[in-house]
Amino acid sequence: MTRQELIRLILDKRSFLCIGLDPLPESLPSSLQGEPADRVFEFNRRIIDATIDLAVAYKPNMAFYEALGSKGWESLEKTIQYLSVHPGGPVFTIADAKRADIGHSSTRYAKAFFEAMPFDALTVNPYLGRDSIMPFLSFPGKWAVVLALTSNYGALDFQMLHPSLPGPAEKSHNKTTHCQKLFEVVMEQCVQWGSPGQLMFVVGATQAAMLGQLRELVPEHFFLIPGVGAQGGSLREVAEVTMNAQVGILVNSSRNIIYAGSDDDFDTKAREAASALQSEMETILRERRFIS
Amino acid sequence: MTRQELIRLILDKRSFLCIGLDPLPESLPSSLQGEPADRVFEFNRRIIDATIDLAVAYKPNMAFYEALGSKGWESLEKTIQYLSVHPGGPVFTIADAKRADIGHSSTRYAKAFFEAMPFDALTVNPYLGRDSIMPFLSFPGKWAVVLALTSNYGALDFQMLHPSLPGPAEKSHNKTTHCQKLFEVVMEQCVQWGSPGQLMFVVGATQAAMLGQLRELVPEHFFLIPGVGAQGGSLREVAEVTMNAQVGILVNSSRNIIYAGSDDDFDTKAREAASALQSEMETILRERRFIS
Repeated sequence: MTRQELIRLILDKRSFLCIGLDPLPESLPSSLQGEPADRVFEFNRRIIDATIDLAVAYKPNMAFYEALGSKGWESLEKTIQYLSVHPGGPVFTIADAKRADIGHSSTRYAKAFFEAMPFDALTVNPYLGRDSIMPFLSFPGKWAVVLALTSNYGALDFQMLHPSLPGPAEKSHNKTTHCQKLFEVVMEQCVQWGSPGQLMFVVGATQAAMLGQLRELVPEHFFLIPGVGAQGGSLREVAEVTMNAQVGILVNSSRNIIYAGSDDDFDTKAREAASALQSEMETILRERRFIS
Repeated sequence: MTRQELIRLILDKRSFLCIGLDPLPESLPSSLQGEPADRVFEFNRRIIDATIDLAVAYKPNMAFYEALGSKGWESLEKTIQYLSVHPGGPVFTIADAKRADIGHSSTRYAKAFFEAMPFDALTVNPYLGRDSIMPFLSFPGKWAVVLALTSNYGALDFQMLHPSLPGPAEKSHNKTTHCQKLFEVVMEQCVQWGSPGQLMFVVGATQAAMLGQLRELVPEHFFLIPGVGAQGGSLREVAEVTMNAQVGILVNSSRNIIYAGSDDDFDTKAREAASALQSEMETILRERRFIS
């Protein structure tokens, strides 16, 4: 999906909601029958059917499928296939895989998610540097979503360090200054490698205070923002400081939507939770005159 | 596998060789029949049969299996199953997956590789910090192998930066000094989280000059060292600066072994390549009086 198509979708659906499909077999409603992997697909199918008019993107996290072995991988394949032909589509699909490896192995991962499966985007870990990210940027209409600032407390360990005093090996980082943190250096470097039509960034909403600065640093690229709850103000606060002239954000919610209910009406409850977020998003889009 | 069992295996086999199982369907000998995923398992089976007396560890890289979809995941499952019951075993098995996610998702990855499949170890990317790594350390006899310094040129981009001038968020990094690079900070932090019986580090041999310093920084933990060719001196040079009193290193070779031949005698050629490395390792182990 191109950037223009994604922006069109946001305006048409009046939503910048991404729904995380992270099914835990032990948390699925008991009314779902069959093997764990079948129940996972059935769960996803009903969540998708109940929410696809409200969401512009879906983001299955690979960890939840791999834990079920090759059967889990099959239920992932069925899910992305289902999404790609859904009459309520198109939707933007993100494999939350947090992959990256040395060049030729990253190329294999790109084939896994962009060719063997028809995902639009893949989340990518930047630690291995440019040749681990570049292979994901050579597929037209496909996206790398680079982890910059994550929403867990471990983000403090390395992402928040201040790289400075460049030595001979870092001559190319000539913009790096004392006040930048590692995740900012990562963002500043990555925008050299991928255009706003190829690359997005994960920036966690738990660090809302910093998001405005990040938008200044990276004005055009989309941000994928996890960690926004259903709790009123924070979505508005986050949108306030991160939206750009082309909307420029997708906001993810996983458990607050997919586990909104635990009985057989889980899909109805999921719809209610998604609908509350979408309404708030529509209001924000209207206030900012993206829609009338 | 415990650390003592791994060291015992190294001394018994007179080898610290790890063989990377990274099969590319298009590079497999034409004599192998069947679907790509079946040929991948058949290829692995013959490589394993031909080399298991020479290697202490095998390391399939997930990217090569995922590129084949759920069928590839099945051939991975068959491969780890085959390794785990092989009469030439036990061997130490490493899933080269470079995973890590926020805590509860990392737990799912741990279940995928340590429970759904019987791998001994998983390679882990440190960018997300402690709660992304800790879940892999709560499985007895299982290992996290943290990427510290990788062997690709992109390692220069972020791993080689100098984090310094700690601000309030980094108070815990009180050992961080101006001369340390990010990958050294990663190593210094990770040894606080995992013992030498739970945690190893990937350190690329292309940076041989630095390996000695890393051994000083982390005296006890095993290093998994990729990037050593079949070219004489470098294995010796690397072993010289990285071995500790309990051997402390595994040296990986992938393509130089598995693609040593391209015809139907590929397994014989792989054995010759593995044997050359094992002989050199045996000599080194003898010179250093680990074996007589």
